[in-house]
Amino acid sequence: VLMVKSKVFGFGKNAWKMGVDDPRKVIHGIKVGIALSLVSVFYYARPLYDGVGGNAMWAVMTVAVVFEYTVGGCLYKGFNRAVATLSAGGLAMGIHWIASKTGEKVEPVILSASVFLLGAAATFSRFIPTVKARFDYGVTIFILTFSLVAVSGYRVDELLDLLQQRVSTIAIGISICLLVCILICPVWASEELHLLITKNMEKLAESLEACVEEYFMKDGAGDGKNSCSQKSQGYRCVLNSKASEDSQANLARWEPAHGRFGFRHPWSPYLKVGAAMRYCAYCIEALNGCINSEIQAPESTKKHLKEVCMKLSSESSKVLKELSSSIKSMKRSKSIDLLVEEMSTAVEELHNALRSFPNQLTQAAVQPAVEANEEKKHSISVTTTLPVMEVLPLITVASLLIEISARIDGVLDAVRNLAD
Amino acid sequence: VLMVKSKVFGFGKNAWKMGVDDPRKVIHGIKVGIALSLVSVFYYARPLYDGVGGNAMWAVMTVAVVFEYTVGGCLYKGFNRAVATLSAGGLAMGIHWIASKTGEKVEPVILSASVFLLGAAATFSRFIPTVKARFDYGVTIFILTFSLVAVSGYRVDELLDLLQQRVSTIAIGISICLLVCILICPVWASEELHLLITKNMEKLAESLEACVEEYFMKDGAGDGKNSCSQKSQGYRCVLNSKASEDSQANLARWEPAHGRFGFRHPWSPYLKVGAAMRYCAYCIEALNGCINSEIQAPESTKKHLKEVCMKLSSESSKVLKELSSSIKSMKRSKSIDLLVEEMSTAVEELHNALRSFPNQLTQAAVQPAVEANEEKKHSISVTTTLPVMEVLPLITVASLLIEISARIDGVLDAVRNLAD
Repeated sequence: VLMVKSKVFGFGKNAWKMGVDDPRKVIHGIKVGIALSLVSVFYYARPLYDGVGGNAMWAVMTVAVVFEYTVGGCLYKGFNRAVATLSAGGLAMGIHWIASKTGEKVEPVILSASVFLLGAAATFSRFIPTVKARFDYGVTIFILTFSLVAVSGYRVDELLDLLQQRVSTIAIGISICLLVCILICPVWASEELHLLITKNMEKLAESLEACVEEYFMKDGAGDGKNSCSQKSQGYRCVLNSKASEDSQANLARWEPAHGRFGFRHPWSPYLKVGAAMRYCAYCIEALNGCINSEIQAPESTKKHLKEVCMKLSSESSKVLKELSSSIKSMKRSKSIDLLVEEMSTAVEELHNALRSFPNQLTQAAVQPAVEANEEKKHSISVTTTLPVMEVLPLITVASLLIEISARIDGVLDAVRNLAD
Repeated sequence: VLMVKSKVFGFGKNAWKMGVDDPRKVIHGIKVGIALSLVSVFYYARPLYDGVGGNAMWAVMTVAVVFEYTVGGCLYKGFNRAVATLSAGGLAMGIHWIASKTGEKVEPVILSASVFLLGAAATFSRFIPTVKARFDYGVTIFILTFSLVAVSGYRVDELLDLLQQRVSTIAIGISICLLVCILICPVWASEELHLLITKNMEKLAESLEACVEEYFMKDGAGDGKNSCSQKSQGYRCVLNSKASEDSQANLARWEPAHGRFGFRHPWSPYLKVGAAMRYCAYCIEALNGCINSEIQAPESTKKHLKEVCMKLSSESSKVLKELSSSIKSMKRSKSIDLLVEEMSTAVEELHNALRSFPNQLTQAAVQPAVEANEEKKHSISVTTTLPVMEVLPLITVASLLIEISARIDGVLDAVRNLAD
């Protein structure tokens, strides 16, 4: 009993925390309650009840099924439900009319055959990607309504009445859904997508900087490292965000003009920005792997590249942050060109540092053995054997940083494309 | 008109191709048709119709909504629908009984308030991850049934009859769905998940080998390169497979024992294998970036590491292929230990090659200037300056290959965990 009690208590605590973290989830629950209460008015108020009769339950069902978290989701389901009901109802009426001309024995055969054929064809169409993305719910409702009307037609005499009532009650249900959804604290899928992209970009910038910092500061205090570690994991959100980006872009397509977004705002560039960011995140993931690998360059070698690497990572992260804030404000950034230039300068500096890397190492190591540096021939200098295994991780980190900055250019292009 | 015609034609062609590529999709469509026809028998056969009356439409609706592609999906929806209908119906009956004691004026207030509260609470509960994953559909049906019964109760005198009919027709619908779904060419979510994991692992192995081959063979014939390129992109499937793995594992949980899988077969280790594979794929993606980057090591430097790198990639890919076939046959592989050993030998060889890398380069470059090699002091040898920029991409490739083999060890652990 105690275990059950603690479990229930923990569950309640979690739910409470979730509600406090994102009050919109609580508001969504309340909105559904309001919509359901509104629709039940159709039952309680006698004149309305007399209008639509016992079929008022279709309105209740519609509200329970169509109400979604985002306005886009609500519109998608409402539109699909309305169009599918109308088209399937009309088609079923037509087939029923034809079947009724053929006599009582053939009628059920024709009806069953049509249900079979249309059901099979509609179900198959759900596998087509475009249909799946935009009309999946509509196809379900099409099958449902068609079967319902075609089959009912055999028994119910006033088929037209049934259909008309179904259509009008569903219309009432959808209007209540849309009104409540849009008027009370609306959650727009487009805003969510916009926010997701900018937040992910900020996380990417932060984790890139934190990763490199962590690598070069590994001998620092333990406390600072922990908080750093958490920051440096931000790119993981970007890795797994494809599904939610896709679904939000799908829903955003349905939304009317609102705030800063017009109707038919182009959403596919957002997906491209998301893809470019993910492309970047894959590289940061590999970088993270190198940073946490067992073989590590000694501190003395690390410090040769420390400054240039950290400069590059901070410049790259600045570019990402500037891009993020430029998307957020939906304005072209003025300083972005300067920042990109600084990033390429940093890349060039890292290149130069790498080019002179063995020399630097030599100078550091050779000092106690200066006497060996007597003979210098053209293009041949006397150096210690470069211990490749020691610098291997360091060189990999540097080269991944260069690759990351190249991929940030890709993000930049995608964002420019978005701005156009 | 011509454009529309060609569009329709193209659409039909795509659909046909899809059907030929995966006949199970066509079969699924036919199965839905069969289930719908079966349920319509309840309308046409008089004795059956007399049993459930006009409410037979609930059975039609259930079939249209519950029938899913996989057995797991069908069971998930059927179970959710049945339990939610029963519990919501019972609860609504109880509240209706209490409300009916309070008099005609207070009754609608109590009913509306209960609909509001339960609707809001149930909707909020959908945001909880566990509920979302396993009972999302059930919560919708709970809200729907509860509102329906609670609101109808105000008018329909024989509330118990309504509920009983709803439950029995839904039971008929669900049984038809399950029978058709399981008896006619069943598609098991567990088999799909199993297949997805093994196929992805094979793709990973192939693309790893193809990537490295492509890098070292870049001067080869153009024809061979193209087919190679396609193969080397296989890892992309792995990058984006998280969503489908998660949903299939969720559905597989609902499936009864069948074939090689018992009931409550542990599915989370599969997800861990998938995660380990994705971890690997991120690194291959970075590798691919390096391979296609602008700065390239000259062929002469490349060939020093060609053999060891290609050996490592082929050994790694052999390990992955062996793991994949061991998952496929669900047997512990006998040769896996040997293969892993060979992979670590290959890693060691690459390490050694890297260690002696500058010396090798020196020997190749120094020959014309042998006269400089006169004085050799302890630990200091005379070499040419190592052109770091030239070998940078090569070293990065090598170090990423080592990282990948370390991550393949992670996959190995996950597969062992799965086998236990």
